[in-house]
Amino acid sequence: MQDVKYNDYLKEVTEILPSGSFLTVKSGNKVNTMTIGWGTIGFIWGKPIFMVAVRDSRYTFNLIEESDQFTVSIPFDGAMKEELNFCGTRSGRDYDKFKECNLTAVPGIKVDTPVIGGCKLHYECLIRFKQAIDPNNLAPFFDEKWYPEKDYHTLYFGEIVASYIDEQV
Amino acid sequence: MQDVKYNDYLKEVTEILPSGSFLTVKSGNKVNTMTIGWGTIGFIWGKPIFMVAVRDSRYTFNLIEESDQFTVSIPFDGAMKEELNFCGTRSGRDYDKFKECNLTAVPGIKVDTPVIGGCKLHYECLIRFKQAIDPNNLAPFFDEKWYPEKDYHTLYFGEIVASYIDEQV
Repeated sequence: MQDVKYNDYLKEVTEILPSGSFLTVKSGNKVNTMTIGWGTIGFIWGKPIFMVAVRDSRYTFNLIEESDQFTVSIPFDGAMKEELNFCGTRSGRDYDKFKECNLTAVPGIKVDTPVIGGCKLHYECLIRFKQAIDPNNLAPFFDEKWYPEKDYHTLYFGEIVASYIDEQV
Repeated sequence: MQDVKYNDYLKEVTEILPSGSFLTVKSGNKVNTMTIGWGTIGFIWGKPIFMVAVRDSRYTFNLIEESDQFTVSIPFDGAMKEELNFCGTRSGRDYDKFKECNLTAVPGIKVDTPVIGGCKLHYECLIRFKQAIDPNNLAPFFDEKWYPEKDYHTLYFGEIVASYIDEQV
């Protein structure tokens, strides 16, 4: 693994994210990863921050609510399409995604949560702020389009404490 | 002005932002600009999103709460240091910053809020979601460090509807 600055690959991250990346969360001895397509990166509270969003209907929501950290692993060049598809359509309640997809949980460097082997770029984050979306403050057409089931996202603002690329990928 | 993709200059934006950029807000015939050092950019709700933070003690807070839009103007190469310093330490309640700093309010292309002349990169945004920071969900050491006066930020999530560079700068 080779350390990079948190913002060295923002162009790539924002290009790739809508096609899917892995959000991995660990609570106790339970680990799960899910496919995310949304997120923002920047600088708040004097720190680099990765913001991710998790719907309260997700298994990951239960885990991340019990945790104080997460990792984001980003596959480059269209890699891991099948794994992203599986992890975006199946729940960790029903499947051990690591086993089903033959995913490698690579130990985190600064956090206790693993990253996903085979991805080029990894972020390790400590949650510093979180807030459930209040639909009263959301544009009504976003509410209708994205939340017909009223399963709103909670936003998790993670301080990026490590960012690195896997030279082997 | 030359259109660019919202993520063409994310490396530059995140490098420059901590040193200051202009957040401009208009409500009715009142226009104000303030210096910001924090923000995130990414992709949420299927759209490119610029998130900015405004403390409730700010004059800009009154304006943005009455508005549905904002612009962010980013000076490159250390330009406009004096103007950023003035606009970051004086309130629009007491000063017409455009007059005091001889700032040029360049009309927005897609929004009714101007951008700041002399800056290289501009974002025009429509607010789609906003939420006041709930200190109960904030890391206590961030709370102590950044909010000793309890003047919490409200987060404004703006859909980026235009992004462009000024080739004359």
